[in-house]
Amino acid sequence: MNEDALIAALAEIVAPARSRVLIGIGDDAAVWQPSRSNRSVVSTDALVEGVHFDPAWMTWREIGARALEANLSDIAAMGARPVLATIALGVPSGTAHESLLDLYRGIAASAARADCTIAGGDVTRTPVVTLAITAVGEVRATSLKLRTGAKKGDAIVTTGKLGGSRAGLCVLRDRVALEGERRDWALQAYRAPVARLAEGRWLGASTSVHAMMDLSDGLSSDLARMCARSGVGAVLDALPICHAAIETAHALGVSPETFALAGGEEYELLAAVDGRAYGHLAARFRVRFGRELFKVGSFRAENGIVLRGGDGLETPVVRTGWDSLESE
Amino acid sequence: MNEDALIAALAEIVAPARSRVLIGIGDDAAVWQPSRSNRSVVSTDALVEGVHFDPAWMTWREIGARALEANLSDIAAMGARPVLATIALGVPSGTAHESLLDLYRGIAASAARADCTIAGGDVTRTPVVTLAITAVGEVRATSLKLRTGAKKGDAIVTTGKLGGSRAGLCVLRDRVALEGERRDWALQAYRAPVARLAEGRWLGASTSVHAMMDLSDGLSSDLARMCARSGVGAVLDALPICHAAIETAHALGVSPETFALAGGEEYELLAAVDGRAYGHLAARFRVRFGRELFKVGSFRAENGIVLRGGDGLETPVVRTGWDSLESE
Repeated sequence: MNEDALIAALAEIVAPARSRVLIGIGDDAAVWQPSRSNRSVVSTDALVEGVHFDPAWMTWREIGARALEANLSDIAAMGARPVLATIALGVPSGTAHESLLDLYRGIAASAARADCTIAGGDVTRTPVVTLAITAVGEVRATSLKLRTGAKKGDAIVTTGKLGGSRAGLCVLRDRVALEGERRDWALQAYRAPVARLAEGRWLGASTSVHAMMDLSDGLSSDLARMCARSGVGAVLDALPICHAAIETAHALGVSPETFALAGGEEYELLAAVDGRAYGHLAARFRVRFGRELFKVGSFRAENGIVLRGGDGLETPVVRTGWDSLESE
Repeated sequence: MNEDALIAALAEIVAPARSRVLIGIGDDAAVWQPSRSNRSVVSTDALVEGVHFDPAWMTWREIGARALEANLSDIAAMGARPVLATIALGVPSGTAHESLLDLYRGIAASAARADCTIAGGDVTRTPVVTLAITAVGEVRATSLKLRTGAKKGDAIVTTGKLGGSRAGLCVLRDRVALEGERRDWALQAYRAPVARLAEGRWLGASTSVHAMMDLSDGLSSDLARMCARSGVGAVLDALPICHAAIETAHALGVSPETFALAGGEEYELLAAVDGRAYGHLAARFRVRFGRELFKVGSFRAENGIVLRGGDGLETPVVRTGWDSLESE
């Protein structure tokens, strides 16, 4: 049973829906209705030392900021703005308090940037440092975006280039030696990702955006989830891959597309945009944010995700995480 | 630095308050304001295998239910009713999926009882099973109860007898051999505590209740927190101790009061009730719930907590957790 299957089985057990909780397990965040025109969203993410981060690769301050950003990214993916977050911190006995204070300094810096209050938490003893963060956000009912809603003909868009975070991890694991700007870009992407909060709210407010989620597990996994929830398939024909990932891929002898498809932890947003509205929306996005809203492909009726090459040939995209690639 | 001091230091780092978040770190739950007359509350608790529970001592189903009840108890302590909860589950690789499904069955049963929707979560790999649960509740602004607000002359009340959970742990650790009803009571108190949700909402709705919290860490620790937050001291003169705890105390050669003061994980509510209103409130409580609302002492202006014996002599209550007693 893989993680998705286990989560589905667990979700089924706790399934009974309740009127004021509109969206339960299965989207980036849960949604409930505090009043008629407003929606509250809540998202929980856990980070575990040795699984999700390694103190040898980044400062405690970066670890803290990154943990909150991962959560804020789920809030962004709903089109919402953050209100508050709570933190369940697990620490092994003997952990230097200065490390924990630095961890919290990172969380505080990220929270301040996002205008999100850290409003409570719990500290427990655990064998390794664990951080479970729950973020609460708010969104107008009309701006709420879910993973369902992608339609055939919709453009598949991302708010940034992909692969940087995974390239950074390759640098840290000494699998590749990048230099200069590309090295900085990759390390920054891995150590200091930033949730696309402003972009999420902006896209959420557009009626041309039919579905949205964040890219925490890599495009192949996350797009498959959006396709499954929306009942559509997808053709990818223009993956935006950052230079650092391209160089890393070449050094490792794998295709750059692998970095875009199987990488993860980048927290760019993935959205389904009305195909006819994409051009106009992308132009406005460029004006507003000074960056591209990349069109990476299109949704179609036929199930499954394929990569279409310049020759028009379609290759099925196997939904795979990075770890299975690493062990090949 | 003990847990409270560390939490205070961490809280200071993330301190900046924001208008819509009314209560941050330091109460049972954080509070924010989704609309003028309503308050939302959110509470996070983490449970760690080997620290907070041991699968040798209870079923996975019980572990799940207990974890959610601990969180719901924080919601109850605010006078609120639960809306939803999210779960961050950490599992070691190789954990039997049937155990996890049972864990969730326990959570689901507790959630159904409390009319609380399990609305999302996260599953990660961890060295031992960890469960971080965040519960969200709602309460009318006028019914919200905090730890601040206890006044000199207020009665100190609890919604039940104390010490049962700790007696159950002593049974499970083979430190004492209880029999029959007392054994059942103690094991039930430890394995299957029930958050006092109805009691919390009922007490929250009363203007005679000035402050409220739940007794998760034992009366001596929790009452000290309420005293500190309210700027008062306390005299304890009538600790309600269950028979199982009294028998266990005698068998271990410690005073029964120890079980009431240093025990924990019972999730009874602790409240400050207007001294003149206590009699009437307790009578109504008895009618409503068929149980006693125990008056265990009174708040007073003078700082510190004392235990007053039948002879009128006052003994300072040292704020101590159970673990330090165990190692004596």
